[in-house]
Amino acid sequence: MDFTGADLIRAAALLGAGISMGLGAIGPGVGEGYAAGKACEAIGRKPEEAGLLTRTMLVGQAVSESTGIYSLVVALLLMFVVK
Amino acid sequence: MDFTGADLIRAAALLGAGISMGLGAIGPGVGEGYAAGKACEAIGRKPEEAGLLTRTMLVGQAVSESTGIYSLVVALLLMFVVK
Amino acid sequence: MDFTGADLIRAAALLGAGISMGLGAIGPGVGEGYAAGKACEAIGRKPEEAGLLTRTMLVGQAVSESTGIYSLVVALLLMFVVK
Amino acid sequence: MDFTGADLIRAAALLGAGISMGLGAIGPGVGEGYAAGKACEAIGRKPEEAGLLTRTMLVGQAVSESTGIYSLVVALLLMFVVK
Amino acid sequence: MDFTGADLIRAAALLGAGISMGLGAIGPGVGEGYAAGKACEAIGRKPEEAGLLTRTMLVGQAVSESTGIYSLVVALLLMFVVK
Amino acid sequence: MDFTGADLIRAAALLGAGISMGLGAIGPGVGEGYAAGKACEAIGRKPEEAGLLTRTMLVGQAVSESTGIYSLVVALLLMFVVK
Amino acid sequence: MDFTGADLIRAAALLGAGISMGLGAIGPGVGEGYAAGKACEAIGRKPEEAGLLTRTMLVGQAVSESTGIYSLVVALLLMFVVK
Amino acid sequence: MDFTGADLIRAAALLGAGISMGLGAIGPGVGEGYAAGKACEAIGRKPEEAGLLTRTMLVGQAVSESTGIYSLVVALLLMFVVK
Amino acid sequence: MDFTGADLIRAAALLGAGISMGLGAIGPGVGEGYAAGKACEAIGRKPEEAGLLTRTMLVGQAVSESTGIYSLVVALLLMFVVK
Amino acid sequence: MDFTGADLIRAAALLGAGISMGLGAIGPGVGEGYAAGKACEAIGRKPEEAGLLTRTMLVGQAVSESTGIYSLVVALLLMFVVK
Amino acid sequence: MDFTGADLIRAAALLGAGISMGLGAIGPGVGEGYAAGKACEAIGRKPEEAGLLTRTMLVGQAVSESTGIYSLVVALLLMFVVK
Amino acid sequence: MDFTGADLIRAAALLGAGISMGLGAIGPGVGEGYAAGKACEAIGRKPEEAGLLTRTMLVGQAVSESTGIYSLVVALLLMFVVK
Amino acid sequence: MDFTGADLIRAAALLGAGISMGLGAIGPGVGEGYAAGKACEAIGRKPEEAGLLTRTMLVGQAVSESTGIYSLVVALLLMFVVK
Amino acid sequence: MDFTGADLIRAAALLGAGISMGLGAIGPGVGEGYAAGKACEAIGRKPEEAGLLTRTMLVGQAVSESTGIYSLVVALLLMFVVK
Repeated sequence: MDFTGADLIRAAALLGAGISMGLGAIGPGVGEGYAAGKACEAIGRKPEEAGLLTRTMLVGQAVSESTGIYSLVVALLLMFVVK
Repeated sequence: MDFTGADLIRAAALLGAGISMGLGAIGPGVGEGYAAGKACEAIGRKPEEAGLLTRTMLVGQAVSESTGIYSLVVALLLMFVVK
Repeated sequence: MDFTGADLIRAAALLGAGISMGLGAIGPGVGEGYAAGKACEAIGRKPEEAGLLTRTMLVGQAVSESTGIYSLVVALLLMFVVK
Repeated sequence: MDFTGADLIRAAALLGAGISMGLGAIGPGVGEGYAAGKACEAIGRKPEEAGLLTRTMLVGQAVSESTGIYSLVVALLLMFVVK
Repeated sequence: MDFTGADLIRAAALLGAGISMGLGAIGPGVGEGYAAGKACEAIGRKPEEAGLLTRTMLVGQAVSESTGIYSLVVALLLMFVVK
Repeated sequence: MDFTGADLIRAAALLGAGISMGLGAIGPGVGEGYAAGKACEAIGRKPEEAGLLTRTMLVGQAVSESTGIYSLVVALLLMFVVK
Repeated sequence: MDFTGADLIRAAALLGAGISMGLGAIGPGVGEGYAAGKACEAIGRKPEEAGLLTRTMLVGQAVSESTGIYSLVVALLLMFVVK
Repeated sequence: MDFTGADLIRAAALLGAGISMGLGAIGPGVGEGYAAGKACEAIGRKPEEAGLLTRTMLVGQAVSESTGIYSLVVALLLMFVVK
Repeated sequence: MDFTGADLIRAAALLGAGISMGLGAIGPGVGEGYAAGKACEAIGRKPEEAGLLTRTMLVGQAVSESTGIYSLVVALLLMFVVK
Repeated sequence: MDFTGADLIRAAALLGAGISMGLGAIGPGVGEGYAAGKACEAIGRKPEEAGLLTRTMLVGQAVSESTGIYSLVVALLLMFVVK
Repeated sequence: MDFTGADLIRAAALLGAGISMGLGAIGPGVGEGYAAGKACEAIGRKPEEAGLLTRTMLVGQAVSESTGIYSLVVALLLMFVVK
Repeated sequence: MDFTGADLIRAAALLGAGISMGLGAIGPGVGEGYAAGKACEAIGRKPEEAGLLTRTMLVGQAVSESTGIYSLVVALLLMFVVK
Repeated sequence: MDFTGADLIRAAALLGAGISMGLGAIGPGVGEGYAAGKACEAIGRKPEEAGLLTRTMLVGQAVSESTGIYSLVVALLLMFVVK
Repeated sequence: MDFTGADLIRAAALLGAGISMGLGAIGPGVGEGYAAGKACEAIGRKPEEAGLLTRTMLVGQAVSESTGIYSLVVALLLMFVVK
């Protein structure tokens, strides 16, 4: 059991990366699916506005996606940059 | 009990990979299923727009899928790249 | 209690495989069941579009299934490939 | 307390098998029950389409079942194949 | 505190059996109850289709039951077969 | 603190029995109550079909009960058979 | 800290009894309350069927109660029979 | 730190008593409150059936109460009878 | 760190008292609040039955309260009677 | 690390006080807020019955409050009386 | 690591204060927000009763607030009075 | 590992501050957002009462905010005053 | 493993900062999103009141945001001020 | 196992960064997805107000996003600034 402090830091960083990405994928995954479902519902009522609705859905999802991307960035930083 | 620090890091990385993918599959799985259900409902009302609705559903699901893929990427990085 | 570091890694990998697949089956299982239920509801209203609706349901479920498959892949990699 | 590393691995694998199957049965169990309930509701409205609806329900449930089967496979692998 | 590695494995297997069956009974229990409730509702509306609806309910429940049975199988294997 | 490995196994088995039955009673308990409530609702609408509805409810509950019985069986096995 | 293995087993059994009964009372408690509430609602609509509805409610609750009783049985066995 | 095995058993029993009663009060508390609320709603619609509805509510609550009483019994047994 | 077994028992009893009362207040608190809200709703519709409805609400709440009182009793017993 | 058994008991009592009050405030807080919201809704429909409805709300909340007060009492006892 | 028993007690008291206030703020926060939302809804329907509704809302919230204040009191006692 | 008891107390206080504020922000955050949403809905129906509704919303939110402020106060006290 | 008490305090403060901000972002994030969704719904009904509704939404969100900001403040204090 | 206190602090900071970002992404992800879904619904009803609704949605999401950004900031500070 001869590990140095640098090893302990590294282990904590990698475990933290897994937690960050795992939990961080729950919220956007559920939220974006809700947006997609509501967009399908709306298009089903007004198919002639499909382009407009798809664009709105994508813009709304893109914002929701951002926190998922933050999680990815934090996980990548924990894995490759942080020392 | 003679393991070095590199072993501890590796163990943390593999456990982190399991946590990242396991938790990261909950959100997109639920969200995409909701989108699929709503698309079926909408097609049931307007079958003549099935192509349009299927396309919207797939675009919306693809964005929702992205956080699941991030989780997969983080898990793969933790398993094969991170040292 | 004489286990080497390689044993600790292996134990973490196998526990991680169980966590990855166990948690990863919750989301798609619930989501796909929701999609199946909504498809039945829609077919119950428009039986003449059953083929179209079944196809949409299957496409939507297939995307939702993907995160479950990622979990399976990560579990298999943790069990058989990662060393 | 004289157990070797192989024993530790085996213990982790068996605990992981229990976790994988236990958690993995929650999602499909709830989702398939929802699909069955919705199918009954639909048949209650259109009994003349019972065959069609039962078939749709079974197809939808089969896809939802798949993640439960993955969990079973991972549990079996952890118990009998992984060493 | 003189237990061998085989004892540790056995203890993990028995604890894993309890977790597998305990968690694995939640999903099917809730899902099948939902199906039963919806079937009663449907029969209450169309009593003349009671036979058809009961059959559909039983088929749907049987599929949902399967993951509960997998959990039972895994628990039994962990208790009596795995060594 | 002089306990042998057989004692550790026994302790794990008894704790596992409690977990198995405790968790395993949540799902069927909620699900069967839902079914009972829906059956009352349906009988309240069509009292002349009370016999049919009670029978359907009991059949549906019996299937839902099964996972609770599996939990009981696993708990009993862990307490009295497993060694 | 001089306890034998038999003491460890006994402690695990008593803790397991508490967990079994505590968790096992959640499901039936919620489910039976739901059934009681729905029965009141139904009687409020058709008071002339009060006897029939009360009987149905009690039968449905009795089945739901069963998993709570299993939990009690397991707890009693863990406290008084298991050695 | 000189406690015997009998002390360890006693401590586990008392902790188990607290867990049993604490968790066991959640389900009946929520369920009976739901029944009481639904009974008020029903009486609000048919005040002339108040006696009948109150009786039904009390019978339904009494059954729901039973699991709470089991929890109390287990807690009392763990505190005063079990040795 | 020189505490006897009697101290360990006492510490477990006090921690158990806190858990018992803390968890045991969740269920009745939510359930009784639901009953109170529904009673207000019903009185809002039929103010002339206010006395009857208030009485029903109080009877229903009293039964729901009982599990909270059991928790209090168990906590008091753990604090003052159990030795 | 020279603490006696009395110190351990005291520490457990204070931690238990925090748990008892913290968890015990969740249920009444949610339930009473629900009652207050429903009372506002009812008064919004029948302002001429405001006095009656406010009184009913307060009586209902007072009962719901009781479990919160029990938690407070247990916490105070754990802090100031128990030794 | 030379801390006395008084230090252990103090540490437990401060951790308990954080838990008490943190958990104790969840219930009232959600419940009072629900009441505020329902009051806005009611005023939106009958603006001429705004004064009456605001007063009812505040009275209802004040009762709900009480458990939050109990939590604060317990936290303050744990921090400044208990020794 | 040479830390005194004062250090242990300080560490517990800082961890307690984080828990208190973190958990304490969940309830008010959700509740106030609900109130804001309901106020927008009400103004959308009666824009001429916007001033009145905004004022009601703010008063209701202010009360809900209070528990969040208590959490902040406890966290600040744990960080800067408690010794 | 030669760390002083000041290091332990610092580690607890940093972990506490992460917990405070992580948990503290859940409530406002969900609540503000609900408010935004309801505002869109209201504007969709009365576009001529968009300015008024956007202002109300922002005021309501600002109050909800406050608990998130408290969490940030506590996290910053734990990281940079507390010693 | 020769790590200094600075290493322990660093490990706690990195683990805290993962927790902060992981939990902090749940709330905004769900909330913003809800807002996006509601905006699509509203545009589906009034396509001529699409610009106005998209702007409202983006403003509302931007506020909700803020807590996610706070989490990111705290995670970045924990990784790169805090020492």
